[in-house]
Amino acid sequence: MDWLDEVKWDASGLVPAIAQERGSRDVLMVAWMNREALETTRRTGHAVYWSRSRGKLWHKGEESGHVQQVHDIRLDCDGDVVLLEVTQLGHEPGIACHTGRHRCFFRRLDGTAWETTDAVLRDPATIYR
Amino acid sequence: MDWLDEVKWDASGLVPAIAQERGSRDVLMVAWMNREALETTRRTGHAVYWSRSRGKLWHKGEESGHVQQVHDIRLDCDGDVVLLEVTQLGHEPGIACHTGRHRCFFRRLDGTAWETTDAVLRDPATIYR
Repeated sequence: MDWLDEVKWDASGLVPAIAQERGSRDVLMVAWMNREALETTRRTGHAVYWSRSRGKLWHKGEESGHVQQVHDIRLDCDGDVVLLEVTQLGHEPGIACHTGRHRCFFRRLDGTAWETTDAVLRDPATIYR
Repeated sequence: MDWLDEVKWDASGLVPAIAQERGSRDVLMVAWMNREALETTRRTGHAVYWSRSRGKLWHKGEESGHVQQVHDIRLDCDGDVVLLEVTQLGHEPGIACHTGRHRCFFRRLDGTAWETTDAVLRDPATIYR
């Protein structure tokens, strides 16, 4: 049985993929993958997602240079979520978020309000030319 | 603006929620939440999800005793994924997965095959009576 057939793709042929940073173990971001994205990620060792907004493969870092080196790929019990262990390249510390922050989960619930806890490390205007 | 309105609920009124363990920082599982699940999680400090298969609120641990104490709730940049920092109660070490394992991500891609890396800590037959 093909390893890709063990993944439970949704009606759109996608699964969510969580990128977790090696070392810090921070959860950096969640994006989507189709079969080709997951197979390309495995083969190249760099994270490739499916951009739902652009409707095409998204080689993470293709514009920003913020490539994710993939050390490990895991699948959950239901087979419908993928977990990547990555090193976030291109900046020190790594920038995974398009807002120029380390991670996408930069808002924390404080009582009943979302509070921004993480600083912008690099102006997005200088990341995306 | 209500903090729940800042969450981008999907067409079914749901968002994926990642449970990450405090301390180990292991990603334990991913489940779904609707507004009521997220609000109840905030209010009670225990993880409550929406069971898509059963079509009702799922107080994690209601059958197994494997309750998740929630320390922190985060939202990503797009507002469409929630990240919980939890302590997995009810067993030492914590059991988040219905298969009796610590976490749901117990399969690791080895070449082109999924390999099970995590042991069953408790027989599911003794968890769900």
